[in-house]
Amino acid sequence: MAKELKDVTKAEDNYSQWYNDLVVKAGLAENSAVRGCMVIKPYGYAIWEKMQAALDKMFKDTGHQNAYFPLFIPKSFFSKEADHVEGFAKECAVVTHYRLKNDPEGKGVVVDPDAKLEEELIVRPTSETIIWNTYKGWIQSYRDLPILCNQWANVVRWEMRTRLFLRTAEFLWQEGHTAHATKEEAIEEATRMIHVYQKFVEEWMGVPVIVGHKSPNERFAGAVDTLTIEALMQDGKALQSGTSHFLGQNFAKAFDVQYINKEGKLEYVWATSWGVSTRLMGALIMAHSDNNGLVLPPKLAPIQVVLIPIYKGEEQMRQIVERLRTIAEELKSKGLSVKIDDRDNVRSGFKFAEYELKGVPVRLALGPRDLENGTIELVRRDTLEKETVPQEGLTDRVAALMDEIQQNIFRKALDYRNSMITKVDTWDEFVDVLENKGGFISAHWDGTVETEVAIKDATKATIRCIPMDAVEEEGKCVFSGKPSHRRVLFARSY
Amino acid sequence: MAKELKDVTKAEDNYSQWYNDLVVKAGLAENSAVRGCMVIKPYGYAIWEKMQAALDKMFKDTGHQNAYFPLFIPKSFFSKEADHVEGFAKECAVVTHYRLKNDPEGKGVVVDPDAKLEEELIVRPTSETIIWNTYKGWIQSYRDLPILCNQWANVVRWEMRTRLFLRTAEFLWQEGHTAHATKEEAIEEATRMIHVYQKFVEEWMGVPVIVGHKSPNERFAGAVDTLTIEALMQDGKALQSGTSHFLGQNFAKAFDVQYINKEGKLEYVWATSWGVSTRLMGALIMAHSDNNGLVLPPKLAPIQVVLIPIYKGEEQMRQIVERLRTIAEELKSKGLSVKIDDRDNVRSGFKFAEYELKGVPVRLALGPRDLENGTIELVRRDTLEKETVPQEGLTDRVAALMDEIQQNIFRKALDYRNSMITKVDTWDEFVDVLENKGGFISAHWDGTVETEVAIKDATKATIRCIPMDAVEEEGKCVFSGKPSHRRVLFARSY
Repeated sequence: MAKELKDVTKAEDNYSQWYNDLVVKAGLAENSAVRGCMVIKPYGYAIWEKMQAALDKMFKDTGHQNAYFPLFIPKSFFSKEADHVEGFAKECAVVTHYRLKNDPEGKGVVVDPDAKLEEELIVRPTSETIIWNTYKGWIQSYRDLPILCNQWANVVRWEMRTRLFLRTAEFLWQEGHTAHATKEEAIEEATRMIHVYQKFVEEWMGVPVIVGHKSPNERFAGAVDTLTIEALMQDGKALQSGTSHFLGQNFAKAFDVQYINKEGKLEYVWATSWGVSTRLMGALIMAHSDNNGLVLPPKLAPIQVVLIPIYKGEEQMRQIVERLRTIAEELKSKGLSVKIDDRDNVRSGFKFAEYELKGVPVRLALGPRDLENGTIELVRRDTLEKETVPQEGLTDRVAALMDEIQQNIFRKALDYRNSMITKVDTWDEFVDVLENKGGFISAHWDGTVETEVAIKDATKATIRCIPMDAVEEEGKCVFSGKPSHRRVLFARSY
Repeated sequence: MAKELKDVTKAEDNYSQWYNDLVVKAGLAENSAVRGCMVIKPYGYAIWEKMQAALDKMFKDTGHQNAYFPLFIPKSFFSKEADHVEGFAKECAVVTHYRLKNDPEGKGVVVDPDAKLEEELIVRPTSETIIWNTYKGWIQSYRDLPILCNQWANVVRWEMRTRLFLRTAEFLWQEGHTAHATKEEAIEEATRMIHVYQKFVEEWMGVPVIVGHKSPNERFAGAVDTLTIEALMQDGKALQSGTSHFLGQNFAKAFDVQYINKEGKLEYVWATSWGVSTRLMGALIMAHSDNNGLVLPPKLAPIQVVLIPIYKGEEQMRQIVERLRTIAEELKSKGLSVKIDDRDNVRSGFKFAEYELKGVPVRLALGPRDLENGTIELVRRDTLEKETVPQEGLTDRVAALMDEIQQNIFRKALDYRNSMITKVDTWDEFVDVLENKGGFISAHWDGTVETEVAIKDATKATIRCIPMDAVEEEGKCVFSGKPSHRRVLFARSY
């Protein structure tokens, strides 16, 4: 591992390779034998589980229930919503057969041509169509509304260029799908959920985000309005971290889902959908890590405290490990997740490097002198500050440190993010900031798709969002010079 | 719902239809637009979540970690283990293309013939092959062992005749996959996990099971030994509820997974796999329910106590609901999950029937007289016994009742199961018991596949298991008359 750590590319040399090295060498995920599909390894999955648990609780606290809908969607379902088919049904995994048979030439198995499906099935890229087809059977009257369902599932989008967590053919996510009697209620729900995402990403992941509306060109295929949370990575690129869509009556109309309102009249149902995915793992890694490895926020760290014995000889080891066990029990009793690494086949320096790579928030090392003095060495991962502290009061100190690290990580990311929002008013400035600084560019835009596309073609920068808290401000579009009433945020993005 | 309840088929009239009615009308699951794939509705999913949580904790307590492996498996992987391909690669969903395009004739979308995969992908029916292909990269030395991974996932097996929960094309499950340095350790692991399943099914689901070995003919495709837990449903048919496989070195050899042992020599790794699925939902329903609906064990009931106000007029309602709220808060403070149903558009009789259908363990109803007398009506779902009890001490009474109901459900199922194990020593008896009584038949078997198959062909009964605690007993095979040394259990099964 010490050797492996040396092999981690430095972020300043090659950010993209640095990211990939961290994911693989910290044991979070790896590529599989199936193109574009990843294996999420136990350490990575443990983080994802903590994310799931926190999000799931937030969903339930806001009145949602989990359910499960089929993996497969009949091909024809996609054609029912015109925008949706353009956005999702193109690059996808298509099931055409339901049987293999022995190869007549004797080599393994081949597809049985007699087992062709009448209608092809698409492996879900997102589930609006199959869910709205189901909701049709659940909704008759206003008393059946709202329906507030969430699903934890795998989805598949056939990406040509994939990157671990950030863009994979198969990924894990949750998708909320809600049905409402009124437009206002649906908009309120979509807004509530983007703020749930904001709260989660900021308070649990320690990643600050900007909440806003997508421009029409960046909207979800089939949505009337898409809300987004946008985070900034340490290379100055933005990462869309979660979206919540107000779908209007588009899917209700496509699947003929109507309800009888209080006045006894038939109306189409209003819809939202919202999702976050294992992509958040990418955001978590890129927002905080450094050249020594991951920096995990304590709230999501599978191991919060690692304890390492420093010793010579078996008798010393016995005594020191015994003391560490007592300390570990105390820490556990405070609800901390703790690991003692008493492997005897690797040096302590190797272990230090390994847990730095894995981003464990606090490292405690106990040596013979500490044993004598009643002290212990404490190193926090976020600052790498080292101090020798008394064993007495250690548990309270470490518990308090968890909050402090959580806050410090967030504050650091927030300071960086805020320093990377640049107001520009001319095209030259726009290009200059984009090329030489990166980050978010706050600029006027004339509101047209043409300008948005022209800017993207010229610079690869897109409108990340029209911030929710954007204030009215008269100005001129940075590209076209046409009048504009508010600034939007541009950035290059993942 | 009262009307719907009347529509539930009686178990004695048509057991299979009774089962289906319960699943659908209690809101557990329904068929989807995709043949053989079900929608698990919120009430059903809430039970599954409780099962998952309990099992997941048991897996972690026994040292396992979760991970996630790809949904797709390259077709060629299946051919690497000869038995496995016969068992699993035949009836499966085959992905052959990765793109759709607009229909040149203008009708929706069609498969793009230019987007054919070089090698077809199979939607995983089980993950041994992709996981052992991955483990190859994780294992070099004995220090990398054991690997103790579990995955929560969806799998697909193209079943022709499907039934909600019991047999669906797509289902949810967990699959544990472990790698060990020695044969003994792998056998110990497979044994440990079948007992984890036994403990879960008996203590949480309240369903007694018999633990045993599968006969060679009923083994998992690719296993050296398959351990099983077998439950008995109220119609006298057995249901295989979980299996744990000792895989020997079969998959290690198929995927060339070797490790360097302590003596520095290369050896093949030993494997186990083990799984339970949403099929357990079927077992849960069929083991306890009656003609009034589900009977859920308190440990898995999404709602443990329902509170229903009985009133005339708004003022009474206000007072009664207020009192119910106070009671509900007290119950919640004891960790009970509680629902007040204060809908004013359905009668209380309708509500009673609805929560009986949904299997809620305890129902409390509060009327004007109760309000005056400080009493409340309590009905337990398992016995339908009704009593009026003081409000004072109610919380402790209900909490204690949860344990009592949990135990009573189990005891009832155990008594039934035990009454349905019949020792037989002649073929006439065998056929007679099978036709007229059902249940498990404990009989001598000569140990040959021929006899097993002949019995199955003649009676549809299979060997459910060779019980782990079977004692040596000399006898003659009930079918062939050849010598036998122990009894095995036969039954017709799901």
